[in-house]
Amino acid sequence: MKCSTFARLLITCPDQPGIVSAVTTFFYHHGANITMLDQHSTDPEGGTFFMRLEFQTPHLDMDRNVLTQAFDSAVASKFDMDWDISYASDLKKMAIMVSRHDHAMQEILWRNQRGELPAEITMVISNHPDMEAEVSHFNIPFHHVPVSKDNKAEAEAKILSILEGQADLIVLARYMQILSDDFVSHYPNRIINIHHSFLPAFAGANPYRKACERGVKLIGATAHYVTADLDEGPIIEQEVRRVSHRYDAEEMKEEGMNVERQALARAVKWHLEDRIIVQHNRTIVFN
Amino acid sequence: MKCSTFARLLITCPDQPGIVSAVTTFFYHHGANITMLDQHSTDPEGGTFFMRLEFQTPHLDMDRNVLTQAFDSAVASKFDMDWDISYASDLKKMAIMVSRHDHAMQEILWRNQRGELPAEITMVISNHPDMEAEVSHFNIPFHHVPVSKDNKAEAEAKILSILEGQADLIVLARYMQILSDDFVSHYPNRIINIHHSFLPAFAGANPYRKACERGVKLIGATAHYVTADLDEGPIIEQEVRRVSHRYDAEEMKEEGMNVERQALARAVKWHLEDRIIVQHNRTIVFN
Amino acid sequence: MKCSTFARLLITCPDQPGIVSAVTTFFYHHGANITMLDQHSTDPEGGTFFMRLEFQTPHLDMDRNVLTQAFDSAVASKFDMDWDISYASDLKKMAIMVSRHDHAMQEILWRNQRGELPAEITMVISNHPDMEAEVSHFNIPFHHVPVSKDNKAEAEAKILSILEGQADLIVLARYMQILSDDFVSHYPNRIINIHHSFLPAFAGANPYRKACERGVKLIGATAHYVTADLDEGPIIEQEVRRVSHRYDAEEMKEEGMNVERQALARAVKWHLEDRIIVQHNRTIVFN
Amino acid sequence: MKCSTFARLLITCPDQPGIVSAVTTFFYHHGANITMLDQHSTDPEGGTFFMRLEFQTPHLDMDRNVLTQAFDSAVASKFDMDWDISYASDLKKMAIMVSRHDHAMQEILWRNQRGELPAEITMVISNHPDMEAEVSHFNIPFHHVPVSKDNKAEAEAKILSILEGQADLIVLARYMQILSDDFVSHYPNRIINIHHSFLPAFAGANPYRKACERGVKLIGATAHYVTADLDEGPIIEQEVRRVSHRYDAEEMKEEGMNVERQALARAVKWHLEDRIIVQHNRTIVFN
Repeated sequence: MKCSTFARLLITCPDQPGIVSAVTTFFYHHGANITMLDQHSTDPEGGTFFMRLEFQTPHLDMDRNVLTQAFDSAVASKFDMDWDISYASDLKKMAIMVSRHDHAMQEILWRNQRGELPAEITMVISNHPDMEAEVSHFNIPFHHVPVSKDNKAEAEAKILSILEGQADLIVLARYMQILSDDFVSHYPNRIINIHHSFLPAFAGANPYRKACERGVKLIGATAHYVTADLDEGPIIEQEVRRVSHRYDAEEMKEEGMNVERQALARAVKWHLEDRIIVQHNRTIVFN
Repeated sequence: MKCSTFARLLITCPDQPGIVSAVTTFFYHHGANITMLDQHSTDPEGGTFFMRLEFQTPHLDMDRNVLTQAFDSAVASKFDMDWDISYASDLKKMAIMVSRHDHAMQEILWRNQRGELPAEITMVISNHPDMEAEVSHFNIPFHHVPVSKDNKAEAEAKILSILEGQADLIVLARYMQILSDDFVSHYPNRIINIHHSFLPAFAGANPYRKACERGVKLIGATAHYVTADLDEGPIIEQEVRRVSHRYDAEEMKEEGMNVERQALARAVKWHLEDRIIVQHNRTIVFN
Repeated sequence: MKCSTFARLLITCPDQPGIVSAVTTFFYHHGANITMLDQHSTDPEGGTFFMRLEFQTPHLDMDRNVLTQAFDSAVASKFDMDWDISYASDLKKMAIMVSRHDHAMQEILWRNQRGELPAEITMVISNHPDMEAEVSHFNIPFHHVPVSKDNKAEAEAKILSILEGQADLIVLARYMQILSDDFVSHYPNRIINIHHSFLPAFAGANPYRKACERGVKLIGATAHYVTADLDEGPIIEQEVRRVSHRYDAEEMKEEGMNVERQALARAVKWHLEDRIIVQHNRTIVFN
Repeated sequence: MKCSTFARLLITCPDQPGIVSAVTTFFYHHGANITMLDQHSTDPEGGTFFMRLEFQTPHLDMDRNVLTQAFDSAVASKFDMDWDISYASDLKKMAIMVSRHDHAMQEILWRNQRGELPAEITMVISNHPDMEAEVSHFNIPFHHVPVSKDNKAEAEAKILSILEGQADLIVLARYMQILSDDFVSHYPNRIINIHHSFLPAFAGANPYRKACERGVKLIGATAHYVTADLDEGPIIEQEVRRVSHRYDAEEMKEEGMNVERQALARAVKWHLEDRIIVQHNRTIVFN
């Protein structure tokens, strides 16, 4: 595994000459060795500047808080940056929300257990009680919060209170309830959803039946950040798998679930590793 | 290469017990060795029956016309079959229609020249004169039929007259004109089109720009039969390729073109090898 | 899910005219509706004939034993067939053998639990005790059979006795012991193994390190039947995933494990659905 | 298309703190806006440092020669760098060598014509005369240099003299002659070859027949730099495509050729865009 003596910096700002130089010079002067830097500008001039860098922390000449303040005043404020430093040794807190399909949740729990997804999973929340035993097996707290037409606002309020301080990231591992705009606004670019996806898209109910009837040859899944626009948030990762006329709608769905597991697990991993910057409605994924 | 002493039979009919037995017994009794048979029913009972078989012709005990009549009266009429026999030695006639992008046409001409696409390419028709030299290089007749808002019906009539008797299959290799329902009705399930395709779909103009703005991670293409519903006909083949935020819309388009070449070439190949049956709005592709 | 009122027939025999006719006529006369038939011959004449068919059993006019005898005398013996009928309602017994990596075993247990792999998992055998709790969670018997240089023959004898009558299929889900030829000979074409796989192959120890040093761009896995020749048996399924120079050997291994899960699960599924025929050192996979 | 007012810098050197800072500060001070920077170190400490950056040239405060000297003395010599700057406006010269299969050559000629591969193709050299007409069609000089057992050294000498000053890159588009170590030493990391590739590898003659007999499910191709070790040089790109038992060796070969076209075209593109650094026997591909 990777040692945890490193940190990652993500930056978004208006592009102008001198940014990379200013950032890297700052870190050099304070004892941080940069081991990976990936930078991208949207246009030759006047575009937006994105950067991710990883640096080693053992020889830093100041502690974290001071570093943060120093970087802010010496560099970030000068270039009008949105920026964030995270330390690999600080595991992010991750909450999972799920309904009745367990495949996506299982994949996340399991990869976390095997060390592939570096996070502290603080809880699983479900609108059904079905998964309790499954979740307990992983020694993770399970919260059953029923949701109905009548209690939706109340249920969301309860969920928000449970999540309070416990979730740097929320993973909707097939949580079949639509979250309100208000709920989403508490976790901007911090809720990841997974859904099936085809070429072309099939809107509405029974997408696999429609896909089967149209004879699609590729079954896909899209992992994206949740925004107020349902299923329209910035795409993080997509995956597909080939099917044929020999698959009925049920078998297409089965394949679809396996594709969802892969796309979701990778999207979560990249979020946890601070590889993603959201700009407008798209993502920059430094991988 | 495959020897050309074989034929292919495609059958669609209401499912009932005894069909495979009746068909294969007929061919056995007339000296045809079946070398490949692929059969598929949509439901355990009461569904639709689809079959493709390849048989060797050297030991047939009757000539083609007689065989056709015999099969029709002894088997096909009994089971209410849609059916067709084609002989590998009879190359299909293929016409290509193209506008200004040459990538899809080039791929088809080239694979045909190398023996991968067994057809006689009878002509290329374009609404622009640009491709004439390119097409001539392959010793294939080129027809320039300009199309404008005012002459569309007339242009289609002219194209139909040129195609008359010369096209078992029409390939729209990026022909940027919408064909009228009347035109399409002359070649049911015999016009193949290729278009870009994403998860999800991006309708309207500038799809690559929209895809780029949404940050899609997979660029795709769909080859399909043309029906009255534009871009909504039965899907034959789909292909995708991974892209990243490092691709601008122009580079996505470039990748998209390469994906189109592959999906279209395979769809055309399968049509030429009589591997496709259309049922309602989907295809059965026996490959 | 598929209803379980159907059966599958697999046939291998020397090719000659009349086989498909004889087989399908037999089933038709005995009330079996054929819902899927896939047949393949290796050569136009003088080759080998392979066939898989699925038929509905509710209207069969004889019981299973009689059907077996009748088919044998009326058809199979005449064409010198290797053949086998299995009924979807008879779940195959599957044993899993594993060492210390749990990913492949987990994937199989889980897909079985979700109904994707139709089998009765009778046991997990391991040369280490580590997986006991994990396996118990699925309510499956766990057998710890330590293997050392000195007790290998004895250990294999013990395993064979535990397996006796309990295994139509053995899945080596990363069982890191080499099985003796004698052991393998008890389960011909009934042991499936999974191993990493690259283009090109990297033999010997530390393959991921070697792959990383050579800068491979695709990480793969191969699922195959076990024969006396280690890792050289007939290939059932292969899968790959793209990696880059940004992956260290550890991360390549992690991706490799995820690829292994997919390739193995599909190979096991196809075996359980009687989709595989082995000919010499290759497989015919009717999927 | 990309504007051509930019340049690319590739650096390899022993890692140490301060390199990124020194490089980017240098370019900032001389008026170059960095629009893309990708940096990678092999280890947290004591590893090797790799970097690629793209910078805009319009506001440079010195001309190219002076910039080169200034960078060398102010930065490169201090960190013991292997480095190279190339300007997008200076098209690289590319020579193609081919034998009798035209697919790989065609793909390169064609993508170059369409603007996807930014290079000046200076010539095609072949040991057979077959391709002359094909190459002339693209208005590219064709040289026929026959090679036999007896004249190999002489033929290579002739080829080297034709190439003199005309080849920044040599593409072996299925050139079926083994180049001598001496020949290769004239173009280190500047000769790209393409060959078929399987999981596992099948050495020696008739690889597709062997692959077919083993029943491989994936057909692949590998593009790599040529070193003295035949087919063992640093891998640049790999691609695969799924096949089945329905493919005979000939059809596998056909698919293999299409896979080769894709892998080779991408490898050539990345070389032309200065995206590749070779370290020992592997590549860093900044894409």
